[in-house]
Amino acid sequence: MGGMAVGGGGGGDFGVSGGREERGVVAAVAWEAGKPLVIEEVEVAPPQPNEVRLKILYTSLCHTDVYFWEAKGQNPLFPRIYGHEAGGIVESVGEGVTDLKPGDHVLPVFTGECKDCAHCKSEESNMCDLLRINTDRGVMLNDGKSRFSINGKPIYHFVGTSTFSEYTVVHVGCVAKINPLAPLDKVCVLSCGISTGLGATLNVAKPPKGSTVAIFGLGAVGLAAAEGARIAGASRIIGVDLNSNRFEEAKRFGVTEFVNPKDHKKPVQEVIAEITNGGVDRSVECTGNVDAMISAFECVHDGWGVAVLVGVPHKDAVFKTHPMNLLNERTLKGTFFGNYKPRSDLPSVVEKYMTKELEVEKFITHSVPFSEINKAFEYMLKGEGLRCIIRMEE
Amino acid sequence: MGGMAVGGGGGGDFGVSGGREERGVVAAVAWEAGKPLVIEEVEVAPPQPNEVRLKILYTSLCHTDVYFWEAKGQNPLFPRIYGHEAGGIVESVGEGVTDLKPGDHVLPVFTGECKDCAHCKSEESNMCDLLRINTDRGVMLNDGKSRFSINGKPIYHFVGTSTFSEYTVVHVGCVAKINPLAPLDKVCVLSCGISTGLGATLNVAKPPKGSTVAIFGLGAVGLAAAEGARIAGASRIIGVDLNSNRFEEAKRFGVTEFVNPKDHKKPVQEVIAEITNGGVDRSVECTGNVDAMISAFECVHDGWGVAVLVGVPHKDAVFKTHPMNLLNERTLKGTFFGNYKPRSDLPSVVEKYMTKELEVEKFITHSVPFSEINKAFEYMLKGEGLRCIIRMEE
Repeated sequence: MGGMAVGGGGGGDFGVSGGREERGVVAAVAWEAGKPLVIEEVEVAPPQPNEVRLKILYTSLCHTDVYFWEAKGQNPLFPRIYGHEAGGIVESVGEGVTDLKPGDHVLPVFTGECKDCAHCKSEESNMCDLLRINTDRGVMLNDGKSRFSINGKPIYHFVGTSTFSEYTVVHVGCVAKINPLAPLDKVCVLSCGISTGLGATLNVAKPPKGSTVAIFGLGAVGLAAAEGARIAGASRIIGVDLNSNRFEEAKRFGVTEFVNPKDHKKPVQEVIAEITNGGVDRSVECTGNVDAMISAFECVHDGWGVAVLVGVPHKDAVFKTHPMNLLNERTLKGTFFGNYKPRSDLPSVVEKYMTKELEVEKFITHSVPFSEINKAFEYMLKGEGLRCIIRMEE
Repeated sequence: MGGMAVGGGGGGDFGVSGGREERGVVAAVAWEAGKPLVIEEVEVAPPQPNEVRLKILYTSLCHTDVYFWEAKGQNPLFPRIYGHEAGGIVESVGEGVTDLKPGDHVLPVFTGECKDCAHCKSEESNMCDLLRINTDRGVMLNDGKSRFSINGKPIYHFVGTSTFSEYTVVHVGCVAKINPLAPLDKVCVLSCGISTGLGATLNVAKPPKGSTVAIFGLGAVGLAAAEGARIAGASRIIGVDLNSNRFEEAKRFGVTEFVNPKDHKKPVQEVIAEITNGGVDRSVECTGNVDAMISAFECVHDGWGVAVLVGVPHKDAVFKTHPMNLLNERTLKGTFFGNYKPRSDLPSVVEKYMTKELEVEKFITHSVPFSEINKAFEYMLKGEGLRCIIRMEE
């Protein structure tokens, strides 16, 4: 244990360094729902048992950050440090941590893997009982308290990661150790959205080579699902989106055809069935809109079609279909984080990038220094680009 | 080609015998919806191209016969010869039939396998484009006509099988050739309901050894699904039925626990989740009631649970669930005829009986001579027993 010479970062090193002491750092604090983040000097407590303190080098902005920052229709929890897509280096580890050591390159993850519960022991599930995503909790599991404070006043965590900070404290079960040769300014985007879409296709939909796949929603997650279909060798990848401008960009992710439901009078599932001789082999729904979910299910071919739901729905949404659509041998599944177990599986996703099977660069459309983090929010709110990398060290 | 000496059967041999001539036989004709069948002398035309004429030795009664005989809410098609669970022997074959020859022991099946369409070529589907079940059609595909007549007046077929007749004509794609050593008075029940339930579990739900399985509906299909779970090595098999009297019998099919939804105030899916630490690993729905379908889906464990729908719903039924139930990594599938391809797969189901892996005898609770076929209807309408074998030759 003990401090390693990873430096204080662009924002300065305010306190003592090392793993057992509080560390003064700069972090982007959200004081109120929907208001620009404020770069503040924050104290970061040392890691407690089964926790690690990470130096974040790169973080990116995901819709989920924006959704909870806007806090519409939720119980707001402020002040809070958002951020959950990131790459960093272990600075220090708490008691009982044996899997990680200072200097390890890691991706913090918004959901965890305790390796001990029924879900972690199941080959199929990644929905750890202990460390499953919890968007309502703003504190650490170990003591129910925050590791962030300003003048003694706690600042809440977000999904156990809070990567909009030079340093953060994360449960060891939410940290994937990756190849130290992997460039963190690229692979940081693999800790949430890109892996979610990619895994939905590769791990859950599993399109056979030569098959036809429909992707609903061509944002970053949907394009990652398309990238998965491309990697799997799908011969036709049909992108479905209400914004036709997205088709041009989507071609770079393997999308071969485009359907805008607004261009048709009949339901989009019928349009797709017509152009595919009865339906696609696989579909992946990445919008969270319940009507899109129903279309994504009903557009798969009877006999063998598989629809995979990824997008998170409104809490009052109801999925409805005629049971004959199921009895005609269609399969409907949902996935969470692309069915990847964070610690066990993310390293292999990074390797897919290292071997150039997976192209990550094309997801990264913007980059800003940490001091301009609010620009990343602006890009996302305007729907500009896919991922904006936030550089913690200028 | 040509006649073989299989005899005229108990009902007599009215016409010329042999494969190229009309054959006078006795059949049980349904003249009107819901009225007792009448044993009649019927002419059975010879098989046309891609058809075979079968001598039926044993047939059994399935709910589907009764459902279409009652003809509630359907376009009635009368007079008609029902029957689709049966075992018999090929008497003669039409032009182009090379897979079967007179003397082969066979099970006629209500749905077919052309071996040429996209479904037949798919490893996953058994929903043949050409020969998929069609309950509205009362004629043969080849010429759109019936092979049955009384004084020149056509009698309609039922699902391409019409096994309530000493002889019947069936498309070759709807005939499974089986081990000639298999006793037809037993394995005849494998041509519909028992295979449907068994395959739903073994081919679709695929419970791992030691897993927990819920079966909704403890009729013949549900008990066959339970039998599948027993064969697969499930450690807990929870039977769900509104009739508690069925539990005692269900134990013989591997059911270890029983839940009657009427005994509980909370939804049955919650009752099951409580007794299984969060849900069963697999469920199989065999009632066709849409509320039972929803319960069967929602009672499977998040992370890995798979629910399989078997029962055929009302045409206006709507399956509804909150999409988060799917996103929490549950899988919902439907199956038709247990995903068995009739010609390719049924012989292996018969072998499961021959090797004593599958116990068929316990499904057979009654037996009547053909002349008393209406008794079989009475047993089923009263809910007495599981399968009644109808012996064509007294």
